[in-house]
Amino acid sequence: MKIVLIGSGNVASHLGKAISSLKGYPIAQVYSRTKLNAKKLADKLNCTSTDKISDLIPNADLYLIAVNDDEIIKVAGQLQNQIQSSSLVIHTSGSIYGAVLSPYFKNYGVFYPLQTFTKSKKMVYHNIPFLVVASSKRNTQIIIELAKQISNTVQICTDASKSIIHLSAALVNNFPNALFDIAAQLLNKHKLQFSLLIPLIEETVNKIRTIRPEEAQTGPAKRNDKSVLTHHRAILKPYPENWLKIYNEITSAIIARHHP
Amino acid sequence: MKIVLIGSGNVASHLGKAISSLKGYPIAQVYSRTKLNAKKLADKLNCTSTDKISDLIPNADLYLIAVNDDEIIKVAGQLQNQIQSSSLVIHTSGSIYGAVLSPYFKNYGVFYPLQTFTKSKKMVYHNIPFLVVASSKRNTQIIIELAKQISNTVQICTDASKSIIHLSAALVNNFPNALFDIAAQLLNKHKLQFSLLIPLIEETVNKIRTIRPEEAQTGPAKRNDKSVLTHHRAILKPYPENWLKIYNEITSAIIARHHP
Repeated sequence: MKIVLIGSGNVASHLGKAISSLKGYPIAQVYSRTKLNAKKLADKLNCTSTDKISDLIPNADLYLIAVNDDEIIKVAGQLQNQIQSSSLVIHTSGSIYGAVLSPYFKNYGVFYPLQTFTKSKKMVYHNIPFLVVASSKRNTQIIIELAKQISNTVQICTDASKSIIHLSAALVNNFPNALFDIAAQLLNKHKLQFSLLIPLIEETVNKIRTIRPEEAQTGPAKRNDKSVLTHHRAILKPYPENWLKIYNEITSAIIARHHP
Repeated sequence: MKIVLIGSGNVASHLGKAISSLKGYPIAQVYSRTKLNAKKLADKLNCTSTDKISDLIPNADLYLIAVNDDEIIKVAGQLQNQIQSSSLVIHTSGSIYGAVLSPYFKNYGVFYPLQTFTKSKKMVYHNIPFLVVASSKRNTQIIIELAKQISNTVQICTDASKSIIHLSAALVNNFPNALFDIAAQLLNKHKLQFSLLIPLIEETVNKIRTIRPEEAQTGPAKRNDKSVLTHHRAILKPYPENWLKIYNEITSAIIARHHP
């Protein structure tokens, strides 16, 4: 199953690495609009590279589009006239529907790794959940076979449920990280170290492996402890207005949940 | 160093267990206003129990108050006339100042474990940071010696910096957990499993062990990807109003931080 990889960012690099270690899924070519990036990744994956759509191999079995969300439709439009009409074209986005590819290709789908990637960081791929959406049973099967070579958790879903999962991913990854960042700034202003909080953050995650988040909730908002909440709000007063708003909104949500 | 433990909740149970395994720190008695709870914990710690302040051993070296924040001052007031005036009295609260004990005792302090405790869950104590505040150098030394028997990370601080750390703990533990809970509810409404998100949550924490939260930030808000943000907001529309407000406030904070 000959594969062409479109993209050279975080997701393209990690998926390229994961796929290139599999048997039966040779990556033949890497495309990036930046010539050097295409070459760098291609060198790692031991394949050819190009920065021109017109130079793309036209007869690969699978075109894997791993570019920024807002580039997907543009790339699809360019790809359409360059490749065999029977080719399977899939993208890796959590937020963009698989159906956006339907005007351009007969065989299309999505192969969404539910994970946050850092380019330079080594990853264990086998426990990354892969969500699969496709235009036909046969295409679903092809994508699932590939995903199962990489991961132990592969799930078929619809574009609609993929969006729910993508939003949830923002809630549990992007947003907690933003809160870590606010805490880091606050501690830094007071010459205190963020690393003090690491064991607490680790335990936050440990807990939800075995108990539901609702049960794991602790803290002043959970107890509706007004004097502590007032004290925290006073501390936040001199900082960006936004921090206090975040504090108030999440506190309200916890109180509403636990003191209905 | 004879110790009396005041309280029988999560923190009292865990600290009692940690201290009772040390040499030279015998726990002589457990007090709880609920007789059965006092006895249950005392049985585990192999000591006596009481639910009457008037039955408290008057000549212990250390009284460790591990009760709800809003009970601390009341308990301190009751304790004052019951115990030797030379006794060291410390509480374990992150949010309550050590200084609240000063009207009642000559020797006082705080011994704040920066961790979230679940009563039934086993804990590793040696990597829990302990923050120590005390009324004198000598008292600081006594509390530090005890804390160092339990943990590898012991830090002296002031009441003011303890408050900053306590607020930060809410930001990195209570609030992310509340977001996990919202995601769990959202997924549940769509018959999707929260467990799908666990590897992503684990990686969120893995990242900040080695890179700063600011660098670890990813997602649509980080990219200021308006079409995804709009899509997420539309999904949240039918849910509690609060969820959308949280989404908008954290999104604004991320955009302000990364697109100043």
